[in-house]
This record gives sequence, structure tokens and C-alpha cells, in this order.
Amino acid sequence: MQHTPIRGIIAYPVTPFLADDAGIDEAAFRRVLDALLATDPAAIAILGSAGESAYLREAEWQRGVELGVEAVGGKVPLIVGIGELTTAAAVAKARFAERAGADRLMVIPVSYWKLDETEIFAHFEAVAAATDLPIMVYNNPATSGVDMPPALLVRMVREIPGIDLIKESSGDIHRMHAIHELSDGTIPFYNGANHLALEALAAGAQGWCTAAPNLLGSQPARLVAHIDAGEMEQARALFYTLLPVLRFIVQGGLPTTVKAGLRLQGLEAGDPRRPLRPLAGERLETLRHLLATQ
Amino acid sequence: MQHTPIRGIIAYPVTPFLADDAGIDEAAFRRVLDALLATDPAAIAILGSAGESAYLREAEWQRGVELGVEAVGGKVPLIVGIGELTTAAAVAKARFAERAGADRLMVIPVSYWKLDETEIFAHFEAVAAATDLPIMVYNNPATSGVDMPPALLVRMVREIPGIDLIKESSGDIHRMHAIHELSDGTIPFYNGANHLALEALAAGAQGWCTAAPNLLGSQPARLVAHIDAGEMEQARALFYTLLPVLRFIVQGGLPTTVKAGLRLQGLEAGDPRRPLRPLAGERLETLRHLLATQ
Amino acid sequence: MQHTPIRGIIAYPVTPFLADDAGIDEAAFRRVLDALLATDPAAIAILGSAGESAYLREAEWQRGVELGVEAVGGKVPLIVGIGELTTAAAVAKARFAERAGADRLMVIPVSYWKLDETEIFAHFEAVAAATDLPIMVYNNPATSGVDMPPALLVRMVREIPGIDLIKESSGDIHRMHAIHELSDGTIPFYNGANHLALEALAAGAQGWCTAAPNLLGSQPARLVAHIDAGEMEQARALFYTLLPVLRFIVQGGLPTTVKAGLRLQGLEAGDPRRPLRPLAGERLETLRHLLATQ
Amino acid sequence: MQHTPIRGIIAYPVTPFLADDAGIDEAAFRRVLDALLATDPAAIAILGSAGESAYLREAEWQRGVELGVEAVGGKVPLIVGIGELTTAAAVAKARFAERAGADRLMVIPVSYWKLDETEIFAHFEAVAAATDLPIMVYNNPATSGVDMPPALLVRMVREIPGIDLIKESSGDIHRMHAIHELSDGTIPFYNGANHLALEALAAGAQGWCTAAPNLLGSQPARLVAHIDAGEMEQARALFYTLLPVLRFIVQGGLPTTVKAGLRLQGLEAGDPRRPLRPLAGERLETLRHLLATQ
Repeated sequence: MQHTPIRGIIAYPVTPFLADDAGIDEAAFRRVLDALLATDPAAIAILGSAGESAYLREAEWQRGVELGVEAVGGKVPLIVGIGELTTAAAVAKARFAERAGADRLMVIPVSYWKLDETEIFAHFEAVAAATDLPIMVYNNPATSGVDMPPALLVRMVREIPGIDLIKESSGDIHRMHAIHELSDGTIPFYNGANHLALEALAAGAQGWCTAAPNLLGSQPARLVAHIDAGEMEQARALFYTLLPVLRFIVQGGLPTTVKAGLRLQGLEAGDPRRPLRPLAGERLETLRHLLATQ
Repeated sequence: MQHTPIRGIIAYPVTPFLADDAGIDEAAFRRVLDALLATDPAAIAILGSAGESAYLREAEWQRGVELGVEAVGGKVPLIVGIGELTTAAAVAKARFAERAGADRLMVIPVSYWKLDETEIFAHFEAVAAATDLPIMVYNNPATSGVDMPPALLVRMVREIPGIDLIKESSGDIHRMHAIHELSDGTIPFYNGANHLALEALAAGAQGWCTAAPNLLGSQPARLVAHIDAGEMEQARALFYTLLPVLRFIVQGGLPTTVKAGLRLQGLEAGDPRRPLRPLAGERLETLRHLLATQ
Repeated sequence: MQHTPIRGIIAYPVTPFLADDAGIDEAAFRRVLDALLATDPAAIAILGSAGESAYLREAEWQRGVELGVEAVGGKVPLIVGIGELTTAAAVAKARFAERAGADRLMVIPVSYWKLDETEIFAHFEAVAAATDLPIMVYNNPATSGVDMPPALLVRMVREIPGIDLIKESSGDIHRMHAIHELSDGTIPFYNGANHLALEALAAGAQGWCTAAPNLLGSQPARLVAHIDAGEMEQARALFYTLLPVLRFIVQGGLPTTVKAGLRLQGLEAGDPRRPLRPLAGERLETLRHLLATQ
Repeated sequence: MQHTPIRGIIAYPVTPFLADDAGIDEAAFRRVLDALLATDPAAIAILGSAGESAYLREAEWQRGVELGVEAVGGKVPLIVGIGELTTAAAVAKARFAERAGADRLMVIPVSYWKLDETEIFAHFEAVAAATDLPIMVYNNPATSGVDMPPALLVRMVREIPGIDLIKESSGDIHRMHAIHELSDGTIPFYNGANHLALEALAAGAQGWCTAAPNLLGSQPARLVAHIDAGEMEQARALFYTLLPVLRFIVQGGLPTTVKAGLRLQGLEAGDPRRPLRPLAGERLETLRHLLATQ
């Protein structure tokens, strides 16, 4: 299945929480989404890794989907992230997101026990069979514990109706080469490793999945525009300007660092959920300095 | 805090499920626990990694605790495993297990976003503060995504009241050396890496946390007895006899392989939960052969 | 020290040997060098990794230097590779190369026992003090066993007179980012990882150190030209055309695969030195096919 | 081929050098060997990794063999280490050692370019064909860059006449398990990873190849004796006493740390060869303290 591919930035909001474990802070979530919509994204993807999806209770997650659909309001495609340990839970979430009005799903398998390729394939097959929404398959071994090699990713796009895009967040540029080669350049892939943004676009990535616009505004979109215009030097100069922030948010964990950065910029989005702790001390000062010199 | 340490085998049951995602198969769970009690364990630990705790719904997990308490019935200490992404969920489970009559907790932090040592420490502190049960801190980076080095493990035992034992499943013998040295041999540690059982005992492990007795009966307990008797050659001979099965269940994933083995041995404990798939084909034949030649 | 940096391709010849361990095949070496000179290189670097420098006796190495100086004849800068286990041997080679008329040295430390940064620094200091030739510091942990992080590389360029360029062959693009950042873009760095050629140039590499022109002619030089002209799409298309060959020669070892490829293309350059064995069987057929479809 | 296996400690001397790169310090080498002979070794192995074989010129190496044969004088078997990049050089050294009166060779392949199994096998075949001395195949990927898996090691012992023992220094206990299993316990293997000494003996290692007796006297031999006597607790207690020194010399590099330790103990054996630097500063003080508390 081939939809018109999304070209450019797929932006990821954090999910703000109320104090005392009292659920999503709905007003703050809307503010975060409104701010993201102003950064020139090609799409918005809620409840992904940056959105602390893994730490949400089921009802919270469902409310998050509804809020996202409402706030994005069709201005750009709205993608919903699904990362579940069991196939049954992933299927249930896919159905909910479709009913709630999402435009697309991004699905990542999560492991406790290692999964073999047959198990991963069957997981995606079950989710895809449960929904009419197109699906982006998402590889992020560092967070999910599941590592899907390029050949498996390409095979799933080819063989499972409904899966049409690939998000690669392993940070290994050679995997992007392999996806390009194995699909003869026909399957759009997106880079999810922030500190590899320049090279992934050089290698032919269709876009960049990133929470960076929360803190860097439309500069990520501008990087893509420079590449599209063949302005390699400007692209490189911009990339090296952004890189300290990109590296910092990758190394410090996206929810922790992006929420801290939003607070520094005056958009209160609360703290990450425990055991994650708010950024503090020297690292907070580093981020303050990095953002001030952007 | 120091309790009388458990010497020998801490045995881990699988958790049998009913078909069609219909919850725990209670009768089968009791059969599994009864069979384990006959393998000469020093303790039984339910709802651990082998028990597919990660794949259980909250109500299923609670029912599992009640069933375990009832079936073990005080014959040996009953340990309950807690592996949660959020601190709030871990605390809630600790409280439930204490009310339900567990003797001890085994707690493993699970990550989506990487945790730093402050976050891990605070997670354990919160769980320990919520219960009077003694706690075994459990390190298993391959399944949980969190890697706690020896210095952190030892520090938590020393500084957090209620944490008194260490289970090390990284499979790195040097970490056991470090725990021994950092604690001057005073903190009992247990080996959770099956294929390292002989060497861990040689290095001074207080016991072996293992699902192997499900398939190998009292032979693991016998290995410990040989070591205790200074019968190094017999210990070694027995270990090499058991090793093919130990290696197979480690490499194939405990729920998948142990459930398949129980079925081969006539104790029906169902299939693992999806996306895990039942052992089949050539690998099933390998296990059949391995068990037949024990 | 800053020389006019070399922009583009630094080409690496193989070193042909006579049969029966009878030394360098001088006529063949000249043919290899003449062919390389026709591929539009910015410089030629003899006796590097691809040149089997590690397997040469001292007298063979010296003869190789003389042959290289003579054959290149000032048409482009002539760089001589030095990779030695002891500092004394590296110093002796540096002096020889200077006397023989080389234009520049490329120096890689080789380890049996791991070296700390003080030892590496002192090694380079001793070599640089022994010669007036400018030195490119070369990092290639996979072959040499020594891994020099960006901060050390940059520090050596800054603090050791005579060291002015960096060749990075770890294949880690983030190290190129770090070199750029740590030196504010002022230290020219070259990429030595063939399958990373496109992205390294995107990231700002001054050139590409490669044995690929032996088999691919002036196509590597053309890739650099496309980048320089802002022709990103053409650069990408060319890179993906070259990539199967680049990957093959990296994975199969440069001396083995390049010598086999030269033979397939009619330029007999002999076999690699034992224990390396000539490419044969299915892998040779793969290379034949890859070269035929270039 | 099966010789009576050597049971216990195979002791490795360092190679003392004269100042100003002036060759082996012969008197000091004799003192080192005499001291080693007093530590109850089952054999002595000269010119191994600890003996800085990799840094010796050819004539120095030859002189080292002669000195070793003379000093050991048949009191225990004398093993000569051969680690060469080219097959031709390894063959030449094997012939020399045999003529000089060595009892056995220990052969490690060294890589610049990665070797495949066919290349490694042919390298050993060529060396074995060149000598009547029995050969111990030596695996030490961290220093040599060549990693030989258990199946290859066992196959070479089985298929190449003259190769009869295995030294495993990867530090991976599972490889010792595999050697035991693949050979049905019939091929004697030796542990070369000092900080794994206790567990390797537990797993059935025939002995321990170590430079530790240079600093720890007959205590390593006593560890083996405890194991042989089934005195597991005493073995463990002794091991943990030795472990800080064992770990220190492994992490700091054997030539560097053992030569420093010998000097601290009053046996002057000079400095390691450059680029290796003598132990100094805080690390030297650490070693002084460790040796003082043995």
C-alpha cells in the first residue's frame, strides 16, 4: 500500500501530566500541540516515545488520543504511537485510535522476552488486520528492546497490507542504506535519530521524526528545506548549530529534557512521570545555556 | 537489614494461561507450583520473568499472587516478582503482595527511557517505603533494559531499609566478584543466569534463581548440594549434564521453552502470551531430544 | 601547523608481491600507481592498510617508498603510511620516508597491549619530532587495535607541531561531528570508511581516503565533485551505485578484494600475503558480478 | 596428538630490556626466570604476551629463546610463544625454537586485516608442518585482534597433527564450556584470563596460564592445589585475596604492571618498550599498596 508520503518533519509532542499522578494536563497538552503546529511540521505524532506513552494508564492513553485529534484538527496528518508488550493490547489501541479519528498509526513492538522475526511479523499482522489506518513501522531498539533489521522492515511493508512507511531510530546510517537498496528506493523511510538528521537526509530519508521542534521551532523544518534546495553548506551550518541541543536531548532522554526545555522557554508542560525525574542541577544549567545560544 | 539468607534454589514457575486471552489457568498454575515444591527448592518466586509478569493485566497479576500464596502455603518462603515501568505501579503491587500474604518481594526496574542511578535509587526507595516485606533487588538488563552495576546494588542494600538480597542475572561473573568484594562478603547474592550456575556457586553465590526445576526436577538442588559438600568433580559432571537444557531455555526464552518442555513432560501449562509463540518445528524437536537424554 | 588542505580523493594503492615470498613486484606496483593517477586523485597514499604495510619486511617497506616516490613523480602529493608497534620503528620509518622524498606521512599507532592517551601522544610526539614532513593522524581501531577519540585527535593536531590532518576510519559519523565541533571547523578531517562516503562529505569531510579508485576509477572523485556542486541527488544516486562495491571491499578486507578485483579487470597485482588468502569461490563470483554491473 | 597434559600453572616471565633500546637485559631475564621457577610452575612459557614478544626485533626474539632454554634447563617444560602477522614469519620462528631446544610452542595468530577460518586454519597448518614440537593454540582476541571460536579451536586440535592443547584468554567462561562439550572433555584447555581463574578451574580448566607468579609467588599454584583437593572454600578465599592484584595487572597491561611490581619487590626488570610507558603516579601507588597487603 502506498500513500502520498509525508515529506519533512514529523513532530512529537511531550505529554504533560497533572501533579500527584492525577492524569494528563489537558490544557498544557493543547498548548504543546498548538506550539508544535507553528513549527511547520508535515505531520504530528502523539503518544510516541517522547510522549511517555509507555508510562500511561490505558484510560490516560485513550484521553490523549482524543485530545490530540481535537487539537490537531486536520491541519496536518495526526499519527498515534502504539508501543505494547502484548499483541492484544496493541490491537485494542489500534481500534481505539481509528475510532477516535487518527489518520495513521506508528507501531513499535516492545519486548520483555526477546522476539524472533516470526513473532514480530505476526504482531504487526494482527495490528494491521484490526484497522484500516496506514501504519508506520517503528524501529527503536534502545527504548523498546526489539531490534528489527532492514530486511524484516522492508518485508513487512511489502507483505502486510496497511504498513507503508518505516521509521528508523537505531542511529545506524547503514540501515538506511539497506532500506533504500532492498526496496530500490521505493519505500519511504524516516530518521528518528536526532543527531543523525543531516546524514539521514543526505542518504535519502523522506523526513525526520523528532521532538526537537518543541524546543527549536521551525529550524528542523528549515534543515529539510535546505537539503531540498541543494543548499548543502547552509544545511551543514544549520545542523552544526542545532547539534548541541539535539545531542543533549538524545542523551538525556526526550521527555526529561524536552519538558525541562519547555519550562525554560515559558511553556509549562510539567515533569516526566516517575521513576523519571525532572532535569536539575548542572544538566539543567547546560540546557539553559544551550537554548539561550540557539 | 539482614534476614536469614535463603541457601540453594529459588524456583520460578511459569504462569499458565487459558485460551483466548481469558486469564490465568488456575488449575494449571497450581499443578506447576505443586510440581516445583517437589524439586527441593529453598524458596519459590512467582510472577518473575519466567512467569510472564510483564504480559499480565493488573487483575491477572493480583489473582496470580493470591494463587501463589495459597498453593505454596508456607512450605517455603514465597517471593513475588515486581517489574514495572512506573514507580506508582510498583508501589501499588508491593502493597497488594504484602496484604495477600507474600513473604518477600523481588523487584526489577523496567525501562523505556534510560534511568540514571538517582532515578533507580528513588524507585527502590519508594517501593521499600511502601511495604514491610524484605526485598531482593533484581538486575537483568537483557529483559528489563536497566543495568544496575554492582556498586549501585550494594549501595541500595546498605542504604535502603528493607532491601537485603541481590539477584544478578547479567551473566557477568565479574559482577559477582565485585558484589562480594564491595560488601566484604556480607551481602548474599544469587545467580539468575542459568548457564553460569556452576561458576556462580564457585564464586560464592548464595543460591541459584532458576526456572530449570520445572523441567529438571531436583537436579539443580543437587548441584548446590555437591558444591556444599566440596564435591567439585560431581558438581562439574552434573553441570555439564544439565548445561544443554540450561543453555536451550536461556537462548529460547524461559516462558516459551519451559512451557513447551512441561507439555512434553505431560504437565500441560498452555502457551506463552502473544506476541510470544509456542515452541515449534525443529526447536521443539531439539528440546524433546534434550529432555529425553537428561 | 596548517598546510593547504587536500580536497577530494586520497587514493590508496595495493602493494603487489612476487610469488614465493620474493618481495614487491615492482613492475606491477608501477602499473597500479599509474592506474591510480588516472582516477583524478588529490593525493596518493602508499603503504597504508590497503597496501599491506603491516605484512612487509623492513627492506620491502623501504623499497616500496622509493618506488612510490618515483612513480608518483610529484604529479600529486605522495603520502607514506606508517603503522608500527614500537615507537622506535615508527621513528626510523619516518626518517627514511623523508629522506626518500615523500611529501607527507600518515601515522597510525598499532597495539598489542592497549595504549593509554599519554602513550599515544608520546608516540606521535616522537615521530613528529623526527621529521619535517607534515603528518596526518590516522584512527582505525578495527585494524590497529588503537582507538583514538576525537578529543585526543584534535588535541594532538593542536599541540604537536607537524600534525595537521585527521583521517577517521572508525566509521562513526558522530566522531566527525565531534572533530568539527571541537576544532570549530578548522581542522580538516578525512573519511576512511568507504561505506560512509556520502554522509561524511555531507558532514563536512575534506576528502575521502580510499582504495576504491583501484576498481572504480574516477567515480569516487566524481562523488566529491557532485557534493561540491550542491548536486545532492546526483551524489546520492552515484553513491548508491557504488555502495555494493564499497561494502564488499570493506567487508572482505581491502588487500584481498582489491587485488582480486584488479585481476578481474586485467591488471595483475598478485595475491595478498599469507595468512591472507586470495578471494575465491562464491565471493569471487560476487565481486565479478558487482564489477560487471558498475 | 595427545601428550601428557600439563596440570597447574604455566608461568609467563616478562622480558627485561637494556636502556636506550639496546636489546634484552640478559642477566635480568635470568633472574626473572629463576624467580619464576621457585613459584611451583608446571611449565614456563617465554615470549608470550606478557613477554612483549610483539615488540621484539627478530634477533632479540631469537636470543630470548636461547636464554630461556638455558635458564629453565629442563626443570619444567619450556614453552615458546609465537605471535606473528605473516605465516612466513611464524614458520621461521617455529623452526628456530625447535632447533634451540624448546619443548613446546604456543601459537597465536595476529591480525591487521581480519582473518577468516580458512586463513587461520592454514596458518596453523603451516606452522605445525614446519616443526615436530607440540603446539598449544592460543586465543586472545583483545591483544591479537583474532577471535577463534571454540568450534574452530577444537577442530584444529582434531585435524592438525601437532596441535594438542588450547589456551583460552577471551575471558568468556561459556567458551570453556563449549570446548569441554565439543571435545567430550578430552581436549585439555587452559585459562589465560587471570580474573577468571577460580571459575575456569571450576569449569574444568587443566591449568592457568599466568604472569601472576612473577608478583604473587606460589599462591596461584596453591589455588590449583585447593581445587584439586576439593577445598572449595579455601580456594575461594584465596582467589578473593589475589583478585585485586589479578584485576590490576589485567587492566593495566601485563608488561607495564608486572615490571613495575617486580621493581617494587626488588627484582629490577626494567621498563616496557615504548610506546608502553612505565607505571607511574597514582597507579604505581595503587600497585604498591596492593602488593603490600598480599
